[in-house]
Amino acid sequence: MTVKNPLVVPELRELIAAGDAQALQAFCKTGHPAVVAEMISALPGTEAWEVLRHADFPLRSDIFSHMDEDLQIEIIGSLRRMEVARLLADMPPDDRADLFKELPDEMQESVLPALAQAEREDIRRLTAYEEGTAGAVMTSDYVTLPPHLTASQAIDHLRKVAPDKETIYYGYVVDEKRKLQGFVSLKDLIVARRESKVGDIMHPEVIFARVEEDQEDAARKIQKYDLLALPVINGGDTLVGIITHDDALDIITQEQTEDMEKLMAIAGSHEAGVYMKTSAWAHLKNRSPWIVMLACLSMVSGFIVQSHEGMLLQFAILASFMPMLADTGGNTGSQAAALIIRALALKEISTRDILRVLAKEFQVGLGLSLMLALVAFGRVMFFGEASTMPESYSLVSIAVAISAALGLQVVSATLIGVFLPMFAALLKKDPAVVASPALTTMVDITGLLIYFTTIKLMLGI
Amino acid sequence: MTVKNPLVVPELRELIAAGDAQALQAFCKTGHPAVVAEMISALPGTEAWEVLRHADFPLRSDIFSHMDEDLQIEIIGSLRRMEVARLLADMPPDDRADLFKELPDEMQESVLPALAQAEREDIRRLTAYEEGTAGAVMTSDYVTLPPHLTASQAIDHLRKVAPDKETIYYGYVVDEKRKLQGFVSLKDLIVARRESKVGDIMHPEVIFARVEEDQEDAARKIQKYDLLALPVINGGDTLVGIITHDDALDIITQEQTEDMEKLMAIAGSHEAGVYMKTSAWAHLKNRSPWIVMLACLSMVSGFIVQSHEGMLLQFAILASFMPMLADTGGNTGSQAAALIIRALALKEISTRDILRVLAKEFQVGLGLSLMLALVAFGRVMFFGEASTMPESYSLVSIAVAISAALGLQVVSATLIGVFLPMFAALLKKDPAVVASPALTTMVDITGLLIYFTTIKLMLGI
Repeated sequence: MTVKNPLVVPELRELIAAGDAQALQAFCKTGHPAVVAEMISALPGTEAWEVLRHADFPLRSDIFSHMDEDLQIEIIGSLRRMEVARLLADMPPDDRADLFKELPDEMQESVLPALAQAEREDIRRLTAYEEGTAGAVMTSDYVTLPPHLTASQAIDHLRKVAPDKETIYYGYVVDEKRKLQGFVSLKDLIVARRESKVGDIMHPEVIFARVEEDQEDAARKIQKYDLLALPVINGGDTLVGIITHDDALDIITQEQTEDMEKLMAIAGSHEAGVYMKTSAWAHLKNRSPWIVMLACLSMVSGFIVQSHEGMLLQFAILASFMPMLADTGGNTGSQAAALIIRALALKEISTRDILRVLAKEFQVGLGLSLMLALVAFGRVMFFGEASTMPESYSLVSIAVAISAALGLQVVSATLIGVFLPMFAALLKKDPAVVASPALTTMVDITGLLIYFTTIKLMLGI
Repeated sequence: MTVKNPLVVPELRELIAAGDAQALQAFCKTGHPAVVAEMISALPGTEAWEVLRHADFPLRSDIFSHMDEDLQIEIIGSLRRMEVARLLADMPPDDRADLFKELPDEMQESVLPALAQAEREDIRRLTAYEEGTAGAVMTSDYVTLPPHLTASQAIDHLRKVAPDKETIYYGYVVDEKRKLQGFVSLKDLIVARRESKVGDIMHPEVIFARVEEDQEDAARKIQKYDLLALPVINGGDTLVGIITHDDALDIITQEQTEDMEKLMAIAGSHEAGVYMKTSAWAHLKNRSPWIVMLACLSMVSGFIVQSHEGMLLQFAILASFMPMLADTGGNTGSQAAALIIRALALKEISTRDILRVLAKEFQVGLGLSLMLALVAFGRVMFFGEASTMPESYSLVSIAVAISAALGLQVVSATLIGVFLPMFAALLKKDPAVVASPALTTMVDITGLLIYFTTIKLMLGI
């Protein structure tokens, strides 16, 4: 939505300058509303509106709902109340509610009275749920069918409501209290005999989400059961909305961006985040808290090194293995953590599997540690001579001690990489909070402790 | 699909032992095929088949297509040729082709002759495209409509083919050479007057993918344009398949797992990868190449330290800042890289934006570097006294030198974090190859060079 096409800008400006209403109206019909929105978005707000206002309804609202939120708010800010009300009236209810939430308070207050009663209540209902829940992403634009209709009556009904509904491919069967009884697809209705009753054709076992359910869980249901839409019910089992397949794609993309940002310890509102639109200052605010905290934490590593200065002055070669110790520990730990976080997110494993996962990762860690110990051993034997060390210690004994320490560090880093996200999940926290930078810094501390202790013990310093 | 439900296993075993065909048949109808498949999958292959074989067709194939590939192959291996042919005949063509590709050669050869001609050719066509392209994920299960049909004739046609087609909600309008002319949705047909011609109702501007297009780009089109399905055409503009909305969800999930694994430098086939099903040995094989390579690369860091041993022996405090140098460099670089990789993947930025992105990240890096330099300065001033250093240097001059070096490292690490994925994208490589571990190790090397050089120059050693 943000890749701009600046090529049409001069043409559009000419049309606006010439006041060529017919050409502008035609332009708005040239392609998919998402494409038109993208092209219009290359213009500043006032000019964008000069194009958009020539589109007929409901196309105008459709194009508008595909624009970036910033531009939407800018346009709304420049319009008269009745124009805003008209524009919002034809927007998909979920997009409308999302936009409404982002409007400044005074704009909300000025727009609300201009809206029809039904729309006001719809906005109120849809904005009532907490961010990140199924309730907050659902739309109220769905079709219900009473069970006593015949298939052909149901099709007639769908035909009638089609222009106003986002999808007519699923009809939800509800009783007089709007409790969800089942659903039929338009395919079922078309294939059924004309006089069959909806109540007889319907699938009574409906996959659904509850309003308070996590939006990602709801999206994963759509994915798992290959649904076009997922009904959302409230505490009283009443149908209150649906989540559509295209929202599921957006939710999963958003959650993935969040996971990756958490993994890299980037704070802040993970929703907004279009890279280029975020100012350097906002980026700094999002990224600095963790970075500074971790830098302070890595001072602990510094103190560990400082308290072993005597050893370092004696065996200068130990200093030259510190980067390898930090890198391999951080790398093996982050790899393990990334795999575990992803497997937890996709529900491939659960916290009950912790022992089996630890057992598996112990083997992987052991394998890695043997390989890396060998690398370190070779390194000391070949290039160690040049370093300062007391004559009373043989090169081999130092090489053995360093490789053993490195091997231990790799195993422990791998296990920490498994344990931390699992532990976060046990505490019902998002496992991705165990960000890779945090893990790297922590594994650095444990690594240096392991390193100096192992070498002290093995060399008997 | 892999969260097992062991609760039903005893019940199922009883039914199998009692040979209760009716109850087993009923069990297979109890829920969504994906749920039934999940419950059956808790059984070993032979028992799973003992349940599944009681399901009627096409439900049997439907449940089967929701099972894990390993179990599918195990079951197929135990069946007679004709049973396999029957099972495959009713599978969704894309799932069937995917499974077929994974069968051992001798099984492929034994099954092929038992299939009908049309299915053989379908499999051959669908397996012909390279992994990761739109052609490799498309299905051949779509509806075409000639333009001269009336709306009501088209609906009749859809009704007739409905049982065999994955989706009847989109009909693709093709000419006699199967060139794509447009599409109509079932909604369009239902809303249109009965005698309108398909050619007049259809949308002539179709969003499509080409067979050789990247599967993620195709999935993103489905997301951007809120489509139920995306037609796929070949070099001659002939319609050869469609990608459905549920495949788009799977593609985006798979690509995300791949990106995260690449970011953590995990090699190997990124598709298979269910964590628990992958043996420790396979995990080791996927993860060790990069880890070992990076460990060798981090020996370069070791050599840099070793060649500055003299300086370290003189100023022991320098060693205690090496962990902080490595951590902050790695963290800031990885953060920047993760943001850039994600923004590139979501097409929020392109390689043409490199200068603007570098400018923005330079500001962010500068901000971070000022904060961290301050932390380092405080650290030296408060705790530096305890360290060995020549009396001819004041603590302040050392603190200034160390913080300057650290600040430079942060800015350079941030810029490297931007530059490397952008550079990979310029070379048409996946930006995620600039894995976080690789970046961390590289930034370590540049960091140590910056560190020792800056301090040498500032202190005039």
